[in-house]
Amino acid sequence: MTKSAHSRELANIYGAIKLFCGSASNDVAQDIADYLGLELSGRDIIQFPNENLLVRLHSSVRGQDVYVIQTTSRPVHRNIMELLIMIQTLRLDSAARITAVIPYLNYARSDKKDQPRVSLTARLVADMIEVAGADRYMTLDLHAGQIQGFFSIPGDVLTTFHIINDYVASSLKARLKDPVVVTADLGFAKRGRNFAENIDAPLALIEKRRTSNDATAEALTLVGNVKDRDVVIIDDEVDTAGSVAQAVKLVKKHGANNVYLIFVHAVLSGPAAERLSSLPITEIITTDTVPIPSEKKAMFKDNLTILSIAPLLAEVILRAHEGRSVGEMFNE
Amino acid sequence: MTKSAHSRELANIYGAIKLFCGSASNDVAQDIADYLGLELSGRDIIQFPNENLLVRLHSSVRGQDVYVIQTTSRPVHRNIMELLIMIQTLRLDSAARITAVIPYLNYARSDKKDQPRVSLTARLVADMIEVAGADRYMTLDLHAGQIQGFFSIPGDVLTTFHIINDYVASSLKARLKDPVVVTADLGFAKRGRNFAENIDAPLALIEKRRTSNDATAEALTLVGNVKDRDVVIIDDEVDTAGSVAQAVKLVKKHGANNVYLIFVHAVLSGPAAERLSSLPITEIITTDTVPIPSEKKAMFKDNLTILSIAPLLAEVILRAHEGRSVGEMFNE
Amino acid sequence: MTKSAHSRELANIYGAIKLFCGSASNDVAQDIADYLGLELSGRDIIQFPNENLLVRLHSSVRGQDVYVIQTTSRPVHRNIMELLIMIQTLRLDSAARITAVIPYLNYARSDKKDQPRVSLTARLVADMIEVAGADRYMTLDLHAGQIQGFFSIPGDVLTTFHIINDYVASSLKARLKDPVVVTADLGFAKRGRNFAENIDAPLALIEKRRTSNDATAEALTLVGNVKDRDVVIIDDEVDTAGSVAQAVKLVKKHGANNVYLIFVHAVLSGPAAERLSSLPITEIITTDTVPIPSEKKAMFKDNLTILSIAPLLAEVILRAHEGRSVGEMFNE
Amino acid sequence: MTKSAHSRELANIYGAIKLFCGSASNDVAQDIADYLGLELSGRDIIQFPNENLLVRLHSSVRGQDVYVIQTTSRPVHRNIMELLIMIQTLRLDSAARITAVIPYLNYARSDKKDQPRVSLTARLVADMIEVAGADRYMTLDLHAGQIQGFFSIPGDVLTTFHIINDYVASSLKARLKDPVVVTADLGFAKRGRNFAENIDAPLALIEKRRTSNDATAEALTLVGNVKDRDVVIIDDEVDTAGSVAQAVKLVKKHGANNVYLIFVHAVLSGPAAERLSSLPITEIITTDTVPIPSEKKAMFKDNLTILSIAPLLAEVILRAHEGRSVGEMFNE
Amino acid sequence: MTKSAHSRELANIYGAIKLFCGSASNDVAQDIADYLGLELSGRDIIQFPNENLLVRLHSSVRGQDVYVIQTTSRPVHRNIMELLIMIQTLRLDSAARITAVIPYLNYARSDKKDQPRVSLTARLVADMIEVAGADRYMTLDLHAGQIQGFFSIPGDVLTTFHIINDYVASSLKARLKDPVVVTADLGFAKRGRNFAENIDAPLALIEKRRTSNDATAEALTLVGNVKDRDVVIIDDEVDTAGSVAQAVKLVKKHGANNVYLIFVHAVLSGPAAERLSSLPITEIITTDTVPIPSEKKAMFKDNLTILSIAPLLAEVILRAHEGRSVGEMFNE
Amino acid sequence: MTKSAHSRELANIYGAIKLFCGSASNDVAQDIADYLGLELSGRDIIQFPNENLLVRLHSSVRGQDVYVIQTTSRPVHRNIMELLIMIQTLRLDSAARITAVIPYLNYARSDKKDQPRVSLTARLVADMIEVAGADRYMTLDLHAGQIQGFFSIPGDVLTTFHIINDYVASSLKARLKDPVVVTADLGFAKRGRNFAENIDAPLALIEKRRTSNDATAEALTLVGNVKDRDVVIIDDEVDTAGSVAQAVKLVKKHGANNVYLIFVHAVLSGPAAERLSSLPITEIITTDTVPIPSEKKAMFKDNLTILSIAPLLAEVILRAHEGRSVGEMFNE
Repeated sequence: MTKSAHSRELANIYGAIKLFCGSASNDVAQDIADYLGLELSGRDIIQFPNENLLVRLHSSVRGQDVYVIQTTSRPVHRNIMELLIMIQTLRLDSAARITAVIPYLNYARSDKKDQPRVSLTARLVADMIEVAGADRYMTLDLHAGQIQGFFSIPGDVLTTFHIINDYVASSLKARLKDPVVVTADLGFAKRGRNFAENIDAPLALIEKRRTSNDATAEALTLVGNVKDRDVVIIDDEVDTAGSVAQAVKLVKKHGANNVYLIFVHAVLSGPAAERLSSLPITEIITTDTVPIPSEKKAMFKDNLTILSIAPLLAEVILRAHEGRSVGEMFNE
Repeated sequence: MTKSAHSRELANIYGAIKLFCGSASNDVAQDIADYLGLELSGRDIIQFPNENLLVRLHSSVRGQDVYVIQTTSRPVHRNIMELLIMIQTLRLDSAARITAVIPYLNYARSDKKDQPRVSLTARLVADMIEVAGADRYMTLDLHAGQIQGFFSIPGDVLTTFHIINDYVASSLKARLKDPVVVTADLGFAKRGRNFAENIDAPLALIEKRRTSNDATAEALTLVGNVKDRDVVIIDDEVDTAGSVAQAVKLVKKHGANNVYLIFVHAVLSGPAAERLSSLPITEIITTDTVPIPSEKKAMFKDNLTILSIAPLLAEVILRAHEGRSVGEMFNE
Repeated sequence: MTKSAHSRELANIYGAIKLFCGSASNDVAQDIADYLGLELSGRDIIQFPNENLLVRLHSSVRGQDVYVIQTTSRPVHRNIMELLIMIQTLRLDSAARITAVIPYLNYARSDKKDQPRVSLTARLVADMIEVAGADRYMTLDLHAGQIQGFFSIPGDVLTTFHIINDYVASSLKARLKDPVVVTADLGFAKRGRNFAENIDAPLALIEKRRTSNDATAEALTLVGNVKDRDVVIIDDEVDTAGSVAQAVKLVKKHGANNVYLIFVHAVLSGPAAERLSSLPITEIITTDTVPIPSEKKAMFKDNLTILSIAPLLAEVILRAHEGRSVGEMFNE
Repeated sequence: MTKSAHSRELANIYGAIKLFCGSASNDVAQDIADYLGLELSGRDIIQFPNENLLVRLHSSVRGQDVYVIQTTSRPVHRNIMELLIMIQTLRLDSAARITAVIPYLNYARSDKKDQPRVSLTARLVADMIEVAGADRYMTLDLHAGQIQGFFSIPGDVLTTFHIINDYVASSLKARLKDPVVVTADLGFAKRGRNFAENIDAPLALIEKRRTSNDATAEALTLVGNVKDRDVVIIDDEVDTAGSVAQAVKLVKKHGANNVYLIFVHAVLSGPAAERLSSLPITEIITTDTVPIPSEKKAMFKDNLTILSIAPLLAEVILRAHEGRSVGEMFNE
Repeated sequence: MTKSAHSRELANIYGAIKLFCGSASNDVAQDIADYLGLELSGRDIIQFPNENLLVRLHSSVRGQDVYVIQTTSRPVHRNIMELLIMIQTLRLDSAARITAVIPYLNYARSDKKDQPRVSLTARLVADMIEVAGADRYMTLDLHAGQIQGFFSIPGDVLTTFHIINDYVASSLKARLKDPVVVTADLGFAKRGRNFAENIDAPLALIEKRRTSNDATAEALTLVGNVKDRDVVIIDDEVDTAGSVAQAVKLVKKHGANNVYLIFVHAVLSGPAAERLSSLPITEIITTDTVPIPSEKKAMFKDNLTILSIAPLLAEVILRAHEGRSVGEMFNE
Repeated sequence: MTKSAHSRELANIYGAIKLFCGSASNDVAQDIADYLGLELSGRDIIQFPNENLLVRLHSSVRGQDVYVIQTTSRPVHRNIMELLIMIQTLRLDSAARITAVIPYLNYARSDKKDQPRVSLTARLVADMIEVAGADRYMTLDLHAGQIQGFFSIPGDVLTTFHIINDYVASSLKARLKDPVVVTADLGFAKRGRNFAENIDAPLALIEKRRTSNDATAEALTLVGNVKDRDVVIIDDEVDTAGSVAQAVKLVKKHGANNVYLIFVHAVLSGPAAERLSSLPITEIITTDTVPIPSEKKAMFKDNLTILSIAPLLAEVILRAHEGRSVGEMFNE
């Protein structure tokens, strides 16, 4: 991925470019603005004693091409609502085009009804983003690619695959001996295969079954071979790190050498940071789609690598603004 | 308001009646169910470690006439989202009709753009309720009647006016000597007049002005006369109780005798409960549209009266279900 | 408010600017065109013997930024329909953006259901403007700010507050002795306070109550003090002038000196012009949001001042076209 | 067409039947109610001095199956708006289903853009009826059958063909000698053929051409033969009666004997009644889709026959309510 | 119609112009591209063994003004679906504006419900084009002008009238002796008159009636006079050529001299080509809105003239792109 | 799954039940009708020489609860269009509720954009079904559960899992020796696991990788162990049977004993039937979601078992009609 040359004058058929950040994405938004040589547009986000939020723009966005950058990390519902209120405010102020840039789209695991009479919240979230007034959206590594079909508006569903591959190629690959890629979730098997293909390693999978009616009793089986190999466990997000802990234990039991862990979204709920830091993992590689609070970061030893998504998002924002292809960034 | 006689068999052109409660309205919902001689329908509301909510219905609502009772008290955004997820779940389970029963509709004060480039969140909330799939809504004492026009779906915008009047007539009026009704907010003047007319008392108003560019410096003027009179301060909601405290001080300074306070929605943010309990108010009368946590209730001496909205909501739900007039409950 | 410098070449991301006027706003539309140095675009509005209207544009508006200026004065329904037909015609001719400029939005008093089973026509009118195909709207001094929430499309809800204040500051203020501001409608109390604050005068209010079941029997109370003071009665519109006549009589009875009357929308139904001209009012100040027919104008002595809204609308149209802030016109 | 036997208890899956009439269809609506053995539901339609309309229902329509009968005769725009306000009021009062019964749908001639940059108002009217909240519509003899495709909601587009045929068979046919059917408008040729086929008569057509650039200069040609025959001129509506006058003159010039005129919608604008009454027409047959004011009726001699549409509409309303076929009324 | 001078740089407020062709309009699309001096944009249309289609664009259309040229000739349903998939693909790739250019819009004869309980497929097709994401459409000689009202989006409904008239004026008129224009379908009478007016010829019509309950037994009557005249039969489309064959036979029986046939859309189902080629018609004039397969073309002798619609569509595309009037091409 | 006892009188809040079948599902629809003891409702589906379809209902469906059963087998586009036209016809005839019953939903594999600038046709198909007017849908074994989120309307996404399991338990399980379940597609791994869990067998997977830039060159790896075991290959659909052939070959190479093949949707394109019949498969088990033409059936020896979906669909239709739970059929 190479950086675009572009003039300082960013204005197109949708007007001038404007970047806004929600309160959950301050760092990434600033990095994007720096990459583009732009300032973030000023806005107040006031929270009243009754928890109600008020958004006020410092200057008008009439006829402009606006990008609101807000991830949906915790507090999840407040951050979703803040995103929606910002979108509505921009729409009512007559922005020409509004793109919601959501590095991590929460509720994406609620994407199908795998039991009767349950919610399908990912579709609800898509509907809410549309009804608030977004014209487009951008996001990274959706839990399932089909979620793109939940939106009526067009969007750029991007992947950090290239960012991770670049890091792996330049920093990790040389260190791996007889690597094998392991996925802890059968639903991630296909993407695990793609990664394995990329580093030319075989694939192994962990299969879970319930051992009794007790929903929590599970038996894990390793399908494939990890003995005397370096293992790269790969997943799209880590929540409580329970599955990761099981997976590390299992591959170690089957004779794995060094273990590496790669995942995109560092949700890290509850005990996750503590768990991860205590596991025998040589290196943990993730991204900043979800900001990791400093007190959690402090729990890790030196083995945590956080890759920046800002250059990717900045480049795509620029291309979206200028009406140029995003696919060709990746020779697609 | 008299209670309807009705058969035990509640089923109409929209199917059988079903009551669901969200986690913010457990008590009111149970009172409504008791009034109607029905059981609340079972549902799980699971909060995962990543804060995501999952709603699961215990049994099917296909072809049924469903009422979801959920106020939007704090945590505000979580409770709004829970309401929306419940509505969507009911819709996807093919309910015949879904009515959102929202005793207190939050964000209703964000109902107009009184400065440029701000959010109009009350409309956004209405849009979200519709996009989730509600067919109708019910609510009590909207901050502004016009908010009814924010919805495309029909609704019952009810008032606790009759509940309060009944209480005033039976319990308070005899105690009042030369009463005068005072409103602390000019925007509430019209409804203050209606209440004053009802107890046959004059009206006085408190007018606030900014005294300098400093937004917090305010001068209060009492328009009208309270000297040697019992004062009834009336408002739609009490948030931090700052305005109430000012109002009590002002009427006392102007020679008021006993002071009474009536308001519908006990939002009671931050210092409100403490403030109210320390003010020289003879009786504080409110409702349970917003549940008051027990630790806040404990701050009050014996002077807090909470009127129940459950009979009103139950009666209206029944009439809505049976296709009978709500207006005629109040001889309208 | 200062006039924008602008190039003669008005073309933006929505194409070239085009002004159309409906038959109810010929004068204001021409004033706006003159202010902007543009010609009104030609169109035929043909009324057939069966009352049906046909709109025909003289030239194409493909890809252009079109403003239709049409107030909704009487004949009210014909003028609303004419506005809608013009909007549809422009849409079908592929205009890039259509803004309905409606100086006076009729039916705005039908903005809430203050009794059961009545219409909420202001919302219906908003829906009709949207379904005809308007992308945006502009209007002046809505009866209630909340009506902005009836529209899904963005709009500029402007106020003549600045126009009136400028006139008051330059022409009226010096003549006022001990002024007091009086509002005849409790629902207008808040805006009355804003005006009073602006000219640094106290506020008084007129409160009406029904005295019996007979809906027409009313008792009026003056809350506040007007004795030996100049009185400025302020309201948003004057319809039949019945309330104004009552108010003038009441303040005179309470010892007012000179009486001034300020209102925005000169609806002046039925006996209004005659009534107003016969009242002891020193000066009547209004605007041309609603054109006053010359035969009605002739009824007034020299005490009628009509302030022009054209510069304000012209300036806002220009800024909307060029994508510049409207708020900053007023240092907001 | 035979009258349905039905129980007095009219209630179906859409609730109980309710009939409302707008102010333009008092007579027809009463006839329909009488036919069905029902009362018209009470409503106030108040016109304020500012021309604004307020609709208020006398009792609730919650969960009921409502039919609003309102033709769109003159004053056209007021009557359309009244219809829309009634529909919205019924919707906001939570009617289960609303059917707009519009005997004559105005603006139907504005159904295509036969020149560039003109309005297509029939579609706008359909959109307005839908956005007001109608679930279904009924109407009679649309100017073009394609207008049914302008609505997204389903409807019953009925024809008076059977009513007219019944009258012709029982009262007219015996009097006709060597009849020929003539249409004055080429666009009506197909329906003229159907009528001619029905009475087993040949068809002739009148063709108009402009004779110069002057739009009003026309040359008329009679295609076909009328000599020594009784002529039945047939059309869907008569507006100013200009074309009819030309047609009568032309067929007389070509040797016609008696001339009869049949049309559905008696719009009768401006000079129409006077013109018709002065033409040498033996009998004029029309319907009451548009009420003819008594002063216009008085202009006719004994040669005016008005056929009632009430039995047809009543029967269709009943079948729509009961979920029975309308087509089988006519053995279709 | 004269060709526009235009710069090579085609880019407007909707971005740069892009032309795509569906697989049913390869030739016309290439002709349009050639006229405009542009290349057709590359795309793959892959049909899998399971008949599913996949559309893939060779390069991005972000922010561009896209025209998809696809007629709906046979295989009809596949070609409609291909058009819809192309539109969706372009929308999801964030095209700024998408115009569906459909030379022949199929299903246009299913434009009204002329019997109960039948489909109204022309409206369904319009809905499908909109839901796929088209912003505008272009088409030629709709079966009924009212179909324009089936679309909510604006469109250019063009006519080949000028193309045919130009050909008639330059090549045919001189050869005609005492011409008379004949329409075989009463529904086409009005457009037949327009053509007749244009070549200054009289009009005759063919009227069909059923002679018994057997739907196929028809009696044809010629209304008007063709004896010893050259006959020009005109229609909008020829499907199986059954009606044409009847018409030719009938006019010949009534003494016509040479017979000419003009129609726009060469649907030519089943036996049409064979039938047409065997009829005594001097010249058959049509257009290329529907491509005629070469094996059908081969059935005709030298008497088939196909007029090209490409210059017309190209000119309109250009004007639509540049925001110029289409009407003025024809001095309208 | 046990059959419901039900009264013969099927009528509910949506009216009486009506079953219609499209021309692609004659057999399944008849089986469903037989199961329910109902007749299929009559309709004509006429295909004209120009390929256009016309749907005509034999009797009215006003206010009835209608189910249209139509699979989307080949000819795919014609069958989709036929389904849509039927839905529209039913809607325009004022059905109370329309449920599209689509045993096999085609285009479901086009459910995400796995490369840039491609179509996402499954969403388009969902949009088309909704715009045609379906209120609900039913389908079986969607390629991805997320497709349910493509619909705004509620639906019953059923699975044949129980049907297949019942067959396996009663007829197959006893014959299997040391079975292992194999999935040929990593995307099906999770559902393969569920099946394996159910028959208490281990899971193995086949992983494909491209071996060069040539898209067709693939290397297959078997992850897991099949040696000396009976293999059950499971998938959701079989199209050309290419992958199946590879899989059978691979497991045989790795020492598998008997091979069984289970899949839901028998698409069987091109060479599929021939391929399958020539492979060393002991038994092929599928369903009748897609009808297998008799000439294809004839290619199989005795090893083809087709399980009927009619009892499942019939039961679900009945429960949907009566407003009873579908989940409880499966103890969910």
